[in-house]
Amino acid sequence: MHSIRIALAQINSTVGDIGRNAEKVLTYVEKAKAKGAELVVFPELVLTGYPPEDLLLKPAFIDENQGTLKKISKKIKGITAVIGFVDRDDSIYNAAAVVSGGRINCVYRKMLLPNYGVFDEQRYFTPGAEPINFMLGDVKIGIGICEDIWFPYGPAKAQCRSGAEIIVNLNASPFNYGKSALREKMLIERARENKVPVVYVNNVGGQDELVFDGHSLVVNENGEVTTRGEPFTEELLITELELSNVRSLRKRKKISDKVKCYKAGVLLKKKKPFKEILPSQPIEQIEEVLRALLLGTSDYVRKNGFKRCIVALSGGVDSALVVAIAAEAVGAENVDTVFMPTVYSSKESEEDSKLLAKNLGVEFSNISIQPLFEEYLKTLKASFKGEAPDATEENLQARIRGNMIMAISNKFGHLVLTTGNKSEMSVGYATLYGDMAGGFAVIKDVPKTMVYELCRYINKRAGKEVIPERIITKAPSAELKENQFDQDTLPPYDVLDPILKAYVEDDKSIEDITRMGFKGRVVKKIVGMVDSSEYKRRQAPPGIKITTKAFGKDRRMPITNRFKG
Amino acid sequence: MHSIRIALAQINSTVGDIGRNAEKVLTYVEKAKAKGAELVVFPELVLTGYPPEDLLLKPAFIDENQGTLKKISKKIKGITAVIGFVDRDDSIYNAAAVVSGGRINCVYRKMLLPNYGVFDEQRYFTPGAEPINFMLGDVKIGIGICEDIWFPYGPAKAQCRSGAEIIVNLNASPFNYGKSALREKMLIERARENKVPVVYVNNVGGQDELVFDGHSLVVNENGEVTTRGEPFTEELLITELELSNVRSLRKRKKISDKVKCYKAGVLLKKKKPFKEILPSQPIEQIEEVLRALLLGTSDYVRKNGFKRCIVALSGGVDSALVVAIAAEAVGAENVDTVFMPTVYSSKESEEDSKLLAKNLGVEFSNISIQPLFEEYLKTLKASFKGEAPDATEENLQARIRGNMIMAISNKFGHLVLTTGNKSEMSVGYATLYGDMAGGFAVIKDVPKTMVYELCRYINKRAGKEVIPERIITKAPSAELKENQFDQDTLPPYDVLDPILKAYVEDDKSIEDITRMGFKGRVVKKIVGMVDSSEYKRRQAPPGIKITTKAFGKDRRMPITNRFKG
Repeated sequence: MHSIRIALAQINSTVGDIGRNAEKVLTYVEKAKAKGAELVVFPELVLTGYPPEDLLLKPAFIDENQGTLKKISKKIKGITAVIGFVDRDDSIYNAAAVVSGGRINCVYRKMLLPNYGVFDEQRYFTPGAEPINFMLGDVKIGIGICEDIWFPYGPAKAQCRSGAEIIVNLNASPFNYGKSALREKMLIERARENKVPVVYVNNVGGQDELVFDGHSLVVNENGEVTTRGEPFTEELLITELELSNVRSLRKRKKISDKVKCYKAGVLLKKKKPFKEILPSQPIEQIEEVLRALLLGTSDYVRKNGFKRCIVALSGGVDSALVVAIAAEAVGAENVDTVFMPTVYSSKESEEDSKLLAKNLGVEFSNISIQPLFEEYLKTLKASFKGEAPDATEENLQARIRGNMIMAISNKFGHLVLTTGNKSEMSVGYATLYGDMAGGFAVIKDVPKTMVYELCRYINKRAGKEVIPERIITKAPSAELKENQFDQDTLPPYDVLDPILKAYVEDDKSIEDITRMGFKGRVVKKIVGMVDSSEYKRRQAPPGIKITTKAFGKDRRMPITNRFKG
Repeated sequence: MHSIRIALAQINSTVGDIGRNAEKVLTYVEKAKAKGAELVVFPELVLTGYPPEDLLLKPAFIDENQGTLKKISKKIKGITAVIGFVDRDDSIYNAAAVVSGGRINCVYRKMLLPNYGVFDEQRYFTPGAEPINFMLGDVKIGIGICEDIWFPYGPAKAQCRSGAEIIVNLNASPFNYGKSALREKMLIERARENKVPVVYVNNVGGQDELVFDGHSLVVNENGEVTTRGEPFTEELLITELELSNVRSLRKRKKISDKVKCYKAGVLLKKKKPFKEILPSQPIEQIEEVLRALLLGTSDYVRKNGFKRCIVALSGGVDSALVVAIAAEAVGAENVDTVFMPTVYSSKESEEDSKLLAKNLGVEFSNISIQPLFEEYLKTLKASFKGEAPDATEENLQARIRGNMIMAISNKFGHLVLTTGNKSEMSVGYATLYGDMAGGFAVIKDVPKTMVYELCRYINKRAGKEVIPERIITKAPSAELKENQFDQDTLPPYDVLDPILKAYVEDDKSIEDITRMGFKGRVVKKIVGMVDSSEYKRRQAPPGIKITTKAFGKDRRMPITNRFKG
């Protein structure tokens, strides 16, 4: 019987924090050794954090990452570790070092570099020239990095033809809903095609707009998932791969020697006892989205050195969801809320906001901005002489709230969480420097219909009314003038959201969307609203990507643009 | 004697406005014919505008561009035109069509795709597989697109070895100061290496953060500039290339037939008389920068459908420069200004702002925000109990001004121009949602020392005091508290600016910059300020790139970042 014990170090590193990332790597190396692992695999670019973006253009950054790898390598003995870092000659490479016996035995350079969606890897990296394998005792192992495993023509094919009995793959694969199932399906295909077990290690944690969801996996040579990591949490997964089957498969075929193979480490002579655990079950999609929002928020707060958050409550469903997420992400004791009414705010909104804060156990203050609103109107009276009230006066109220919450943030060091959802951000139904003012836009990529779904789910999960029912059931209104409702100017959200998904995420044309069964006039209006709000989105704070295409780095539209979609 | 007459259509197209861009192409085809040209060359992606960014992901956008090319090709007769467009098979390509006789004769696909700085071409395009030449009568011509000509290994080499007697190159090459001289040097090298005349056609106009400066060029086979386009303006340049010399050079060498050659059009039997004009002289760098700012501003206003601009005057040099640029860019009659004092505003600032507005002939209003400021302090009194005044109160004043100017903008449809310079944007010496509130940040990429230089230049050029002298000579102050001066917290700008250039534009480390002769303590402080202001810059409006690295698409730094530069 031939077996190898592998540890998957699904860890959360921080962009730029090379020293502390390296310390964490060493900690997990020790943990893996304690569990009797012979190989421990870390995520893609674990030393620098992912994505380092233009830090990669700084020679001092590359120096520090290389120096740190060298330094920690000396301490890695009695186990083999595969560690993501940035390699350099005349160019730089997204690379993985195979370390054991206190030294770097070989380095693999990522061959397939994603340059779409949120990825800009061809901006920085040169693709690696060739696949490599390495020997751990008598076991031959191929390495790939993220994108490498997504295509049948990636390096795994050549590695297996040259005798690789295991493929390890290092990842920094960001979350969107549906992605974990997609990844699993892809890994099963790749394992079956190559008749090889695949050890897929993803990182975990939030980085600006991205959340890495972990969800590390081991798929055996028959395409069966044998180990599945917990999503959204750091974890050291241990798997023991039994290789007799793969070995006999390899023996039947002629092994090519095209792929270079490096001697890297040894297997343990005496293995510690191993207790197999069944793979954890995939979680529901709505729970996945919620946990992505929680991790994205807590990591943005923590990694940027904030202690407290503040949310402006309006009595509506968006701010309710954001404060519920904040309270769970950073602790209710670290969340302040403020309700800032004018004469247009309803009694119900005030009551519901107060109750919501009470249910969550967060601070609540109530500060009327009506005198400020009136002072602005007075100050602007001469300039606005003869002009009828319009959206200007509505925006003013939102902007006074923006100023107020920023003043509190400036005075006490809170991070302001904004409350706009994706439907609003799409059609520009938000005030720049008003409700859009803040450091982090928690639900920026969550369509309104999913905002409702999440609120209901939070209550269901808690087994009690956390978010007051009336917040969820009342007709949505910005309460910036008398008798104002979202549906005065927008179609119902269950009509709006599929149109937005088709236009924003799927790049469909007005004609395509009309053919899906929506009214041409409505589609045209919505598309026009999306296009003309680009300047607002450009000035929006970052928020957490949860769909296939988020606003931000994921969707790069010109502001100056006369194309009529 | 062998000669060919070529028109360089240095035109201003608009992103997404495919129909009107095509009309302009046809207009310039007719103009070129009227001048007796046998070949007319348009800029890169002239049909779609450059850069179309994620519009390229919309199939309907590619369809419209292809359909439009087909349609206009039918109308192009009696001349050969080279037109930039997006070609498609299973992928899309940055391409150039050679059109004559009412049809597309051949298509070249750009081989070298820039994916650095402001460029994301590998995000969208597949590189072309091969160079091509085309025949115009008995003249063999090679085509390249922008990046293709920047490297000795680009397609021109193979094209010339296969007998090309002229290289035409289509461009969308954005401005930064120093770039036009660099381009000229590069084109001279390429012409000499290949002993070939190079016809370099650049587009012109503003597109969000970019300004294309025109500056089209013809360099002969000896590396002499024979034609130089006017910068920053639409122009049809006509050149007549005498080919006897190149032809005899080609005859002496064995011509390879590696590069495919297409029959494309004919030469005119009888040429119209041609009057050679000497190449226009390059302009001074400060004039170049000013014209880039003027064109960038006027095109942002015009292409986004605005009629009027508004600028908040502070009495300082930044707002003075911005309003002077606005008045020239869109006409003084289309510019409003507003001075919004508090008790901290000096009498001099008020007088100078008023005089500035008078000198420029722009509207001026003076609205005190002191009552609003006091109303905020009253509203926040309970929340701020026991807290000392700090930057919060300063930011409040800036944000009240932001609200006021946005209210005026909302009511009357002005574009708000913000006034922050690059030095401020770098160190975060600006208030988010305050003085940073607006649609377009004219001098966002202009370092403070260059702001002064531009102000002095504007006065010098006008031969009179347009910008009041006192604005230029007084010590810079934000006037947000008593006796506040920029130099209380920042080193003098002639120390700050070189440090910022080294860190922001040249990616140097703290150590590198200290070695340049600056105090380590100062460098470290400045670098820390730059890093910690990333979240502000992410929410800043776009502004015009004039240096080698601007904030925005050009410099993509993570917000969450613990690297200590």
